[in-house]
Amino acid sequence: MILDMNKPIYSVIAAATIDGRIAAHAWQFTGWTSKEDKDFLHKILDQSDVVLVGNNTYKTAREPLSKRNCVVLTRSVRGVVLKREGLVYLNPKNVNLKRYIKDKGFKRVVVLGGTQTFTYFLEKRMIDEIYLTIEPLVFGKGLNLFETKKSRIWNFKLVSVKRLNKKGSLLLHFKA
Amino acid sequence: MILDMNKPIYSVIAAATIDGRIAAHAWQFTGWTSKEDKDFLHKILDQSDVVLVGNNTYKTAREPLSKRNCVVLTRSVRGVVLKREGLVYLNPKNVNLKRYIKDKGFKRVVVLGGTQTFTYFLEKRMIDEIYLTIEPLVFGKGLNLFETKKSRIWNFKLVSVKRLNKKGSLLLHFKA
Repeated sequence: MILDMNKPIYSVIAAATIDGRIAAHAWQFTGWTSKEDKDFLHKILDQSDVVLVGNNTYKTAREPLSKRNCVVLTRSVRGVVLKREGLVYLNPKNVNLKRYIKDKGFKRVVVLGGTQTFTYFLEKRMIDEIYLTIEPLVFGKGLNLFETKKSRIWNFKLVSVKRLNKKGSLLLHFKA
Repeated sequence: MILDMNKPIYSVIAAATIDGRIAAHAWQFTGWTSKEDKDFLHKILDQSDVVLVGNNTYKTAREPLSKRNCVVLTRSVRGVVLKREGLVYLNPKNVNLKRYIKDKGFKRVVVLGGTQTFTYFLEKRMIDEIYLTIEPLVFGKGLNLFETKKSRIWNFKLVSVKRLNKKGSLLLHFKA
């Protein structure tokens, strides 16, 4: 196999509870996660070329994302709209996102959520790796990482496990 | 603190995908999990005094549970009905389950699911520990570990992490 070094790497970055919820409700940002998870998130964002994020998640994270190079995935625009330097709105229904990312020369692509965005990349088989922090708590309800109507199984491999703190926030790294 | 040595220990035993699903659909038993997870499950069941299981889960697991001491939680009976030696149907709406377990002298109680049963024990704060195997795959839909209408957070502590096999099935142990 010849690796295409020009191929961008798509990394899903998410935090979930023991029961697999990424948020207790739609308007909750990742503020509920541990300090150590936030530190990891910032480190990954610092290393990335671009952040892909759904419009709802972007709204809850506007401030922390303000200094990042962002592509907001949304149906609120027809194609690609440059909102300001470093902020693009893009409708993936009408624009070939994969080609857009490649044309821009982005190599390290972080997919930040939420559910709808994560599911888009899952269904398109565009996820190269998943960094999932599991916080040791239970919401018992809320949003799942993925929500598809397709009936199939996607296999990953666990690459590493890291305990982030004393209470036991766990960082799992999977590859497709 | 004086530990009540007579207090039964309630252990939730579950397996989930990366995206927190315990099954892709309601009629799926835990047959999708790794051999190593099944070995662990059998070991835990061997050490337990009684298995508490919802009626739906029991139906999908009738054969593997046939030699276990089971209490099936169901609204199909009014109170407690002894179906045969080692198999009791019990309606937790009308019977004090906690007292029943204590009166029977059960010490090691395994809660096997599904979602409705897990949620019952979560809401009643009857979960002492959770053993959760995370299999490195994604269903993208299906049943969650818990499904409550209550708005609160339940905190746990991570006790241990064990990698079960090469592909990376992970056994997590949490305590309340």
